[in-house]
Amino acid sequence: MTRTQATVDSVLTLLREEPQHEGQLEHLAREARELPVGELVYLVETRPATEAALLFRVLPKSIALTVFEALPAHHQAELISGLRTQQVADIIGDLDPDDRASLFDELPASVAERLMHGLDADERAMTTSVLGYPRDSIGRYMSPEVLSLRPEWTVAEALAHVRTHAAEPETIYLLPVIDATRSLEGVVGLRRLLLVDPEARVGDIAHEAVHALATDDREDAARRFFSAKLLAMPIVDAENRLVGILTVDDAVAIIEEENTEDSARTSGSEPLPRAYLSTSIFGIVRSRIVWLLVLAISAILTVQVLEIFEDRLDQVVVLALFIPLLTGTGGNTGNQAATTVTRALAVDEVRVRDLPRVVWRELRVGATLGLVLGVLGFVVASLVYGLSIGTVMGLTLMSICTMAAIVGGLMPLVAKRIGADPAVFSNPFISTFCDATGLIIYFSIATAVLGL
Amino acid sequence: MTRTQATVDSVLTLLREEPQHEGQLEHLAREARELPVGELVYLVETRPATEAALLFRVLPKSIALTVFEALPAHHQAELISGLRTQQVADIIGDLDPDDRASLFDELPASVAERLMHGLDADERAMTTSVLGYPRDSIGRYMSPEVLSLRPEWTVAEALAHVRTHAAEPETIYLLPVIDATRSLEGVVGLRRLLLVDPEARVGDIAHEAVHALATDDREDAARRFFSAKLLAMPIVDAENRLVGILTVDDAVAIIEEENTEDSARTSGSEPLPRAYLSTSIFGIVRSRIVWLLVLAISAILTVQVLEIFEDRLDQVVVLALFIPLLTGTGGNTGNQAATTVTRALAVDEVRVRDLPRVVWRELRVGATLGLVLGVLGFVVASLVYGLSIGTVMGLTLMSICTMAAIVGGLMPLVAKRIGADPAVFSNPFISTFCDATGLIIYFSIATAVLGL
Repeated sequence: MTRTQATVDSVLTLLREEPQHEGQLEHLAREARELPVGELVYLVETRPATEAALLFRVLPKSIALTVFEALPAHHQAELISGLRTQQVADIIGDLDPDDRASLFDELPASVAERLMHGLDADERAMTTSVLGYPRDSIGRYMSPEVLSLRPEWTVAEALAHVRTHAAEPETIYLLPVIDATRSLEGVVGLRRLLLVDPEARVGDIAHEAVHALATDDREDAARRFFSAKLLAMPIVDAENRLVGILTVDDAVAIIEEENTEDSARTSGSEPLPRAYLSTSIFGIVRSRIVWLLVLAISAILTVQVLEIFEDRLDQVVVLALFIPLLTGTGGNTGNQAATTVTRALAVDEVRVRDLPRVVWRELRVGATLGLVLGVLGFVVASLVYGLSIGTVMGLTLMSICTMAAIVGGLMPLVAKRIGADPAVFSNPFISTFCDATGLIIYFSIATAVLGL
Repeated sequence: MTRTQATVDSVLTLLREEPQHEGQLEHLAREARELPVGELVYLVETRPATEAALLFRVLPKSIALTVFEALPAHHQAELISGLRTQQVADIIGDLDPDDRASLFDELPASVAERLMHGLDADERAMTTSVLGYPRDSIGRYMSPEVLSLRPEWTVAEALAHVRTHAAEPETIYLLPVIDATRSLEGVVGLRRLLLVDPEARVGDIAHEAVHALATDDREDAARRFFSAKLLAMPIVDAENRLVGILTVDDAVAIIEEENTEDSARTSGSEPLPRAYLSTSIFGIVRSRIVWLLVLAISAILTVQVLEIFEDRLDQVVVLALFIPLLTGTGGNTGNQAATTVTRALAVDEVRVRDLPRVVWRELRVGATLGLVLGVLGFVVASLVYGLSIGTVMGLTLMSICTMAAIVGGLMPLVAKRIGADPAVFSNPFISTFCDATGLIIYFSIATAVLGL
């Protein structure tokens, strides 16, 4: 066991004893201070709320702030209710305005309002401006505190300005250039300012800014951020006036949240609002039950399909043996296609207009996969159950794979086209759809081949 | 149609005509220059190799480099074979050493060697140093060109040093502090240098560095990078000597690749080496066929389970009707649990040692889900097929959901424990496993309740 692991265990034991005396708390504080920030975040995220708050209270102020900033907003809001008023005020005051806005969003309105009153006028104004943008818009994630330059300044003047104001904004490494009406004219990197002639004009060395509208979708803006390999991105309003700046940490947080959401939805559940181990059992059930019910009810379709073919089943009961294998293979083939296309959509490698190309590709891929599995299925089933069952299996596998690959490739595009999340519409629905369609194909082929 | 979209269409038409004359190429070049970089990347990524190379050849040098840098290494390697020698030499010379190393890795050894000879001695040494680290280690992604400071320097001296050397390294915003033996002592942000007293010593204002070993796993290092909200991270060798620096764009690329890999594996396929639309049909088939075969062969288990119960099926053929619904529900419940735990493992919200907690949570979640579905299944099936079939359905749904949730939660942890990728071991295997186990549960309950 590493030293860190031993300290984690000791902190865990101390937390579970719910220490009250000064001495015990002292001991806990000493042990906690030994831990790297990553371990502290893990502990706060995965322990029940009371233990998390206890641990948090014994941390030194600066470490507490770092740990707090690393938590998702929903979790921050919960933690706050377990802390002393003074510690809350300290933390809220030190947060960046965009992080503060996300937190206020999760707090009950009355608590948010009380905390808002504790802020000074400037901080309050910035928090309010961020909260004014719609949920899921990039405006919610930007920092309204931006250090900007004027095009008519010399580089020397610009550098002096940066040095004077370097302490406040979230970043000073990318500097938007704005005119007298705050209209965005371009950007200059701090590195460029250090490299060029101090007498040059800022307007002459600025280059065009990759930027976003404050009302743009957060995922689109974050993806643009990363494809352009930025360190920061200016955010403007509808009149091209600079209203804030998006920094790397916020763009990363957005992408990670979107990835978690996609991965949950692909398997037919909603993303959890907080860490798995500290979500209540009821919270986890809630994230899964709706989809599970919808899918189970859709699966009644398969019962109805089988009812139609019940007399054939009664005649040749051996047909029932292959049902899970065939539906399973159809589901797997469909999910492979759906996952590939969903991910390609997310990273902008496929667009809705590529639909015909996707269908044509999946048709060929599905037919090839079906050919391989069909030949294999024909050989194995013929050897064990005779030539006619073998023929049914071979033809069915071939058809099901082709059908499933096309459906799997198509569904995410259709979802995107009608404005739904491609991830929601994909895997579990495809499985259910392919189950029902696959059974129809199976029994139609069986009826024809076996002459039922 | 937007103006950009119209230009994309016009470029597509021009590319398909495979222009040869100067005039046509001129026209293509003019149109291509109108497009934003993001659209150019999309075109190069999604068109066949010959068209991509043609488009690339008409781009101005600086834009060509930007587009080239945005492509994955595998795709870069392919593109290179279609370009003129001079353009290749220009691009290779301008790439960062870490990106160059990734590209060389994908090229045939003879081509890589020839290109390596075209580099000057410094660039060649840096590329070789990066190529010396194992695949998937963070050393492969770092930039060996680092601007570092010495602790005994004053801040004024440090700033002068930065200004003189600002042009070469990938970043100047985080500056590692090293002693005479290149041993890493700490880091200073450029912002801090601009803020403090110019007479202060660098050693006094430096703080402890969040760093990584060059041989560390790339995903672990990239996740540490983002939890610490860094702009850059020093990379050291086993003796704590500074060997490179990891920048944001590289950390983002690693996380995005890992996410694509996880999403592919979760659905039982291997990630594609390049963009979906430009991968060959054979390449897509190859990414799916192995898993599909493995899963189909595992699914033979379900045939064998059903054979055991064939006489019961023959007696009560109505039992066959519910097979796809029951196996489907089991698979869905298992996948929900597996996806949640796989993602929680990826973002370090769950660790292998949490196994007992995960099992206990999934037991309760699964039982609750099973209770809801079981009651519903009992009521519906009783109304349609009578009380005894209703009882079988209710009890089976309850048991299958509980079993599937536990298996789904357990599998990713077991995979991680034995050193496999949790994503590989999870969803498709869970479906197959739950199918077979679910059928045993189903027919055992049916045998008992119906007295078969």
